[in-house]
Amino acid sequence: MSQFQSRITSLLGIRYPIILAPMGGVSGGELAAAVSEAGGLGLVGASYGDPEWMKRELGHVAGLECPWGVGLVMFTVAKRFDLLDLALSFRPDVVALSFGDPAPFIEPIRNAGARILIQVHNIKQARDAVAAGADALIVQGAEAGGHSWKRATLPLAPAVRDAVGPAMPIIVAGGIADGRGMAAALTLGGDAAMLGTRFFATSEALGSPDIKRRLIEGHAEETVRTRAFDIVRGIDWPPQYSGRALENEFSRMWVAREAELSMASDAVRTAYADAVRNDDLHIRAVWAGEAVDMINSIQPARTVIDDLMREAEASLALALRSFAPEAAIPA
Amino acid sequence: MSQFQSRITSLLGIRYPIILAPMGGVSGGELAAAVSEAGGLGLVGASYGDPEWMKRELGHVAGLECPWGVGLVMFTVAKRFDLLDLALSFRPDVVALSFGDPAPFIEPIRNAGARILIQVHNIKQARDAVAAGADALIVQGAEAGGHSWKRATLPLAPAVRDAVGPAMPIIVAGGIADGRGMAAALTLGGDAAMLGTRFFATSEALGSPDIKRRLIEGHAEETVRTRAFDIVRGIDWPPQYSGRALENEFSRMWVAREAELSMASDAVRTAYADAVRNDDLHIRAVWAGEAVDMINSIQPARTVIDDLMREAEASLALALRSFAPEAAIPA
Repeated sequence: MSQFQSRITSLLGIRYPIILAPMGGVSGGELAAAVSEAGGLGLVGASYGDPEWMKRELGHVAGLECPWGVGLVMFTVAKRFDLLDLALSFRPDVVALSFGDPAPFIEPIRNAGARILIQVHNIKQARDAVAAGADALIVQGAEAGGHSWKRATLPLAPAVRDAVGPAMPIIVAGGIADGRGMAAALTLGGDAAMLGTRFFATSEALGSPDIKRRLIEGHAEETVRTRAFDIVRGIDWPPQYSGRALENEFSRMWVAREAELSMASDAVRTAYADAVRNDDLHIRAVWAGEAVDMINSIQPARTVIDDLMREAEASLALALRSFAPEAAIPA
Repeated sequence: MSQFQSRITSLLGIRYPIILAPMGGVSGGELAAAVSEAGGLGLVGASYGDPEWMKRELGHVAGLECPWGVGLVMFTVAKRFDLLDLALSFRPDVVALSFGDPAPFIEPIRNAGARILIQVHNIKQARDAVAAGADALIVQGAEAGGHSWKRATLPLAPAVRDAVGPAMPIIVAGGIADGRGMAAALTLGGDAAMLGTRFFATSEALGSPDIKRRLIEGHAEETVRTRAFDIVRGIDWPPQYSGRALENEFSRMWVAREAELSMASDAVRTAYADAVRNDDLHIRAVWAGEAVDMINSIQPARTVIDDLMREAEASLALALRSFAPEAAIPA
C-alpha cells in the first residue's frame, strides 16, 4: 500500500486521507475503530445524543492506539452541553461539528486537546468556520446521503479552497464512494475525502443485513431529499437542511406533504417509531447518497479503505498519463 | 504545452480534451472557431433554431481547418427537420444532440459524415444513447448553467462509466470552470470536459460586456434553477428540465409563481422581450453554472484553454505526489 501525505494526514496523524462520516445510528464504535485501525479516521456518529448509546459506542474506541473522533450535531449539543462533556470524557483525538454555530464549542474542545473539524456547506460558513477556529473544514455537497444543503461538491470544493486560502486543510464530502471520487476530491483542492454511504455498506456498520442490502440494490435516481423523516421523528432540523434517503412508501406518501405531516397525529409518529424498531424499510429512512450507484457489495471497512487508496492512485495516474501519451515521446 | 490523448481527442481529432458547450446566443461562430483553433472543440449553439442566426454563425466556422461542430436541441429540431438539414449543409465534423429522443437524427447525421455526441442526464438516457448510436456521451450534472436535470456531476460521471462500459468516450459537463474541475472530470471516468459558463466569460463569446461582467461578480449561491425564463419566452421545455441562472428581479418575482407566469398577459412577455433587446440584466436571464465562483476575468478562449491544460495537469500531478511523499523515499 502507498505511503500518503497531505495536510489532513499530517494534522490528524493518520495514514490515509479517508474519513468516516459520523452517521447517526450507523457509525458506531466498531465501524469507527475499524476505519481508524485501517489507517483512516473513524468518527462515531453521536447524532442527536442518546447518552447510553454514546457511552456504549465511545467505549469501543476509547482505548485505541490510533486517532479516532466523534461527530456532534451542533443544534442538538447547543441545548445539551452535557453531551459535549460526555463525548470529551472519552478523550477523542478529533471532534467533528456539523449543522449550527460552532462558537460555543471551540474552547471546551480545544481545552480537551482535540482537533476541531467543522462541516460547511457554502462559502460564508467556510469563512466563519475558519474565523471560529476550525483546524480543518469538511466541505459537504448535496450529493451526500443524510443531511446537507444545496451546493454540489465538484464546484463547491475548489470555491471553498479559493475562499479560505491554501493553508487550511479541507476534507471533501458528498458523492464519493470509490477511488475515482476520492481522486476527484484531491484534485479539487481537498486534502482528504469523507465517505458515508460507502461505509454504511460495511460489515462493521450498525444496521441490519436487510438495510445494507438495500444500499447495494439502490440507485441514485431513487434517492429523494426531504424533511419528512425529520418531521415524523420530531427532530427540529434548521429548515435549510433536508436529508437524502432512498424513496420508500413513507417518502412517497409525505415528501410533497411535509406541512401536513407536521400536524399529523401521534399515531403517525408511533407507527414510524415502530417501523424503526422493526427495521421496516418500507417506512423507516434508509439514508443514502448519490454515490450509492457505486456500491455493489458489503465489505469490511479495511477492504474499502485499501480499495479506495489503490483506485484513487490508479485513477490519478491514468488521467495524468493522458497528458504524456506514448505518441508524444520521440522514438 | 503538453501533448494529450484520450478516447475523445482520438475520436474527434482534436488536441485537447476541452469542449465548448453549445450555449444558445453565446456560443456563436467566433467563439466556436477560437476554441477549435486553440485545440479544443468549438460547438456553435444553434439553440431554438433561428435560421438567419445559424447561417451567419455557422458561416464563421465552416471553413476551418480544424474540427468544429454544432449543438442542436432535439425537442426543437424534432418539429423542424429543416434546421438539421441547414446545420448539416455547413458540413460540421460533430453534431451534439441535447434534450429529446435522438433516434430520428442519427441516420441523417451519420450520412453527412459527422460524429454524434448525445447529452445525457441519467443512467437510462446513457444506455439509450449508446443503443441509439452515439459516438460519445456528454454526461451533464445539475451544477451546469442553463438547462439540466437533477443529478450531480461527481457521482453521475462514474456511474455512467460503469453503466456503459470502458469503450464509450465520455465528456463530463456541469460545474467545471478551471483545471481542478477538468482534472476531476478525467479521474471520474471522463475522457474530456465540457465547459459553458467559463467560455461565456471570454472575449469571443456573444454577449455584452455588462453580461460578461455579471459572471465575474456572480456567485454560485446566487444561482437559481427555474422554468420562469422558459415560460416567459414561450419555449416549451420538457418539464423535468429547468435552467440555472443568476438571480435577478425577474427570477425573484416569478420563481415561486411559475404556474401564474404561464397565464400571464402578453404584456409580461413583451416586457421580457424588450429587456432581452435592451440587455436589461435585472430582467433577462443571465445563465450561469455553479462554477461561476471560479471565474474572475474575461479571457480570450485560447488563454482559457491553455490555463485549463496547465492547471489540470498540475493538479493531477500534485494529487498523485501525495501518494509518494518524499518521506516515503529511502534516503
